[in-house]
Amino acid sequence: MDKQVKEVLKRNRQHYLKKMMEFLSIPSISSDSNHKDDVRKAASWLADDLRNGGLEHVQILETAGHPVVYADYLKAEGKPTVLCYGHYDVQPVDPIEKWTSDPFKPVIKDNIIYGRGTSDDKGQVFMLAKAAETILEAKGELPVNIKFCFEGEEEIGSAHLDAFVDDHLDLLSADVLLVSDTTMLGMDQPAVSYALRGLCGLEVRLQGPKGDLHSGVYGGAVQNTLHAMIELLATLHDKQGHVTVKGFYDDVKPLSNEERKTCESLSNDEALKKELDVDSLYGEEGYSTIARIWSRPTLELNGVFGGFTGEGLKTVIPSQATAKITCRLVPDQDPAKIGAQLEKHLKEHLPVGVKLDVVLMDRADPFSMPVDHPALQAAHKALEEAFNTKAILSRQGGSVPIVNTFHDKLRLAPILMGFGLDSENFHAPNEHFHLQNFDRGLDALTSFLFYLPEYLK
Amino acid sequence: MDKQVKEVLKRNRQHYLKKMMEFLSIPSISSDSNHKDDVRKAASWLADDLRNGGLEHVQILETAGHPVVYADYLKAEGKPTVLCYGHYDVQPVDPIEKWTSDPFKPVIKDNIIYGRGTSDDKGQVFMLAKAAETILEAKGELPVNIKFCFEGEEEIGSAHLDAFVDDHLDLLSADVLLVSDTTMLGMDQPAVSYALRGLCGLEVRLQGPKGDLHSGVYGGAVQNTLHAMIELLATLHDKQGHVTVKGFYDDVKPLSNEERKTCESLSNDEALKKELDVDSLYGEEGYSTIARIWSRPTLELNGVFGGFTGEGLKTVIPSQATAKITCRLVPDQDPAKIGAQLEKHLKEHLPVGVKLDVVLMDRADPFSMPVDHPALQAAHKALEEAFNTKAILSRQGGSVPIVNTFHDKLRLAPILMGFGLDSENFHAPNEHFHLQNFDRGLDALTSFLFYLPEYLK
Repeated sequence: MDKQVKEVLKRNRQHYLKKMMEFLSIPSISSDSNHKDDVRKAASWLADDLRNGGLEHVQILETAGHPVVYADYLKAEGKPTVLCYGHYDVQPVDPIEKWTSDPFKPVIKDNIIYGRGTSDDKGQVFMLAKAAETILEAKGELPVNIKFCFEGEEEIGSAHLDAFVDDHLDLLSADVLLVSDTTMLGMDQPAVSYALRGLCGLEVRLQGPKGDLHSGVYGGAVQNTLHAMIELLATLHDKQGHVTVKGFYDDVKPLSNEERKTCESLSNDEALKKELDVDSLYGEEGYSTIARIWSRPTLELNGVFGGFTGEGLKTVIPSQATAKITCRLVPDQDPAKIGAQLEKHLKEHLPVGVKLDVVLMDRADPFSMPVDHPALQAAHKALEEAFNTKAILSRQGGSVPIVNTFHDKLRLAPILMGFGLDSENFHAPNEHFHLQNFDRGLDALTSFLFYLPEYLK
Repeated sequence: MDKQVKEVLKRNRQHYLKKMMEFLSIPSISSDSNHKDDVRKAASWLADDLRNGGLEHVQILETAGHPVVYADYLKAEGKPTVLCYGHYDVQPVDPIEKWTSDPFKPVIKDNIIYGRGTSDDKGQVFMLAKAAETILEAKGELPVNIKFCFEGEEEIGSAHLDAFVDDHLDLLSADVLLVSDTTMLGMDQPAVSYALRGLCGLEVRLQGPKGDLHSGVYGGAVQNTLHAMIELLATLHDKQGHVTVKGFYDDVKPLSNEERKTCESLSNDEALKKELDVDSLYGEEGYSTIARIWSRPTLELNGVFGGFTGEGLKTVIPSQATAKITCRLVPDQDPAKIGAQLEKHLKEHLPVGVKLDVVLMDRADPFSMPVDHPALQAAHKALEEAFNTKAILSRQGGSVPIVNTFHDKLRLAPILMGFGLDSENFHAPNEHFHLQNFDRGLDALTSFLFYLPEYLK
């Protein structure tokens, strides 16, 4: 890390933490209309803080929902531009009685800060801003151009982000997207992701007889819609855990030997079994646990229901049954193609006596970038130095929808450098954030901004 | 039919109908606490009517819920005693807007009476009472001893009937049980049942990981509880519709050739398909539709649920899944044995990665009596004369729980002589009852009382 930057970080640490606690104290719960003003208050606070930190063109930009906070620094002529994304809204705090301290009165204990938003994502938004401000203070200028786009609706599905980006394509144009809203692989194991799974969701509805029937009067003579659903859904996987839909794996790239080895070495089945309280893990034969999550597509039943769901029994032959399915997709699978294959499979395997309705729903493209992408290498180097250990080039099992938004609309390669931990209770009571990663994260973020121009020529 | 009885029936018809409409006007909805007083009012009305009709020892007997109306005539020394069962409570009337006339202001149109309870079961309760009263008026005495037990809780599962029978074993002792709360096979096709299916119900619960999981973060590496449920439930039937639980059919008596032929001749698949609005019927290979319903055991899923059941999608790996199952059982299957076999099957076929909990619930023994039982023959003869066509010795696909109650506690052979039709909208708006069957039913019921002593010596 640059020596002057290091000094400023050290000098400002207490001040930064004090300011961060101010920011965390604003209950910016985006899903709760009672907190609408608080969300806006957090946006104002953030805008003021960016302005005070020396950033320019600070604006609170309206959307149909909560606003976006924008700021930039564009004086690094001829240098790449980094668009920083994060969100200043937070999850609700229920069940409040499970918190051991007030979610909006952050406290520090044993170098861990407790409070709603500490890890997801106000703490990390604050770090992105401070990374730029620290360099400005230390050097009087930034080694790159930087733009901040902090939204207030991530926890409610980024409802208006797509429209916002469409309306501000020029304002947001950049060379790289920097996102601090993900987790590390472990306390001392930084990672930067080069691939995300996509999604293809659908709802399967079966209609049998025109109404629920008495199982005594009709039982045995007419298709039970739930039996048909079970029979149909049972055709989707084989005994080895593979998806049996024709063509499902056609576009899946095999893992390289190196990727395979990385996945094997990162898989800790005993720890996962303990975490989930299960006797055995289960998945596609021939792949390690991490390989299954990172690199293999899945077809998951997210919900199935039909017939009587109350207490006790009701001797009914259900007339309708519904299944909600999502597939996690990997590069280079096409959600539309998978959806069509799945619909075809369902039609071909439809049991007698029921009518089928398939409703294709959410879709997200899987994402991947070359592992030798120069921005990834700059991130890798910055992380390795900050954490004093080799960063892992990882994949993510989930989708990060905003990555697709910025990639599809602005062609931005995403650098996912997050400093949270899965164990830090984001979305749950007693959310917290390790200040050791606050320090190491600021180290990595500032270094990344310095290294980027070298790599991304 | 006895000539004097015939004359009295003719003379009293308008008076009977007027009285029946009075009875039907009382909204005795047992499930609705707002109608508690109306249920009691109906009991009082019925008690008064029985008393006025010449019956004796009329009593309103309390239970922990709605009362039972009792009356008797015990002067036919040396003759058999018939216990008549029916219920004076009715179903709710929702959705009220679908009624074309007030459910509690009965109207007669084209010899059909419309109103709640016309067919189920106040109309038929009234007929049982009038059958006895008519003979008393015509002859001054009855050819049999008769007892009435009319309950007010059939539509809420006869919650207190078992306890009531236990508390009144002597009062209710008899030789035969006469029930008018079932339907005929068609407008001109009377039937009397000699067998009923029994029941064995259970709930199957699967527990996977300790909480719902994010399908991106964990999908592919851990058992999806719904997948396990689908895999497990899919083992319960084979492709030919047979139940695959070991031993399930061991105690099932094969149909006689005659029964098989009766079932075949009564099966009208085209009509049933139209009624249920399905393209195909479905059931166990090798059996006609009626044989499947009357004589074959089933294993039906009544409800299945797990995971997300709201609108849209949620990318969750469900932690829990539940299935509600009931088996319809036939003579001589034992519900306890079937329950144990099923539990064993579920344990043996349990997929990896989930825990199983089986909760055995409701049970009812299947019921059958010899087709040459003398009381059945008396009923058969009475029906044939009244309807001018051969009555069918039928089975029923459902259970009639009160039959088990009276059979188990009082060893009563049941004669199920009902005069409703499946098409008469009992439990639905615009319930109605064909007065042609009111007339023919009174004919059959009175004749049955005359014939019984001849057969049941």
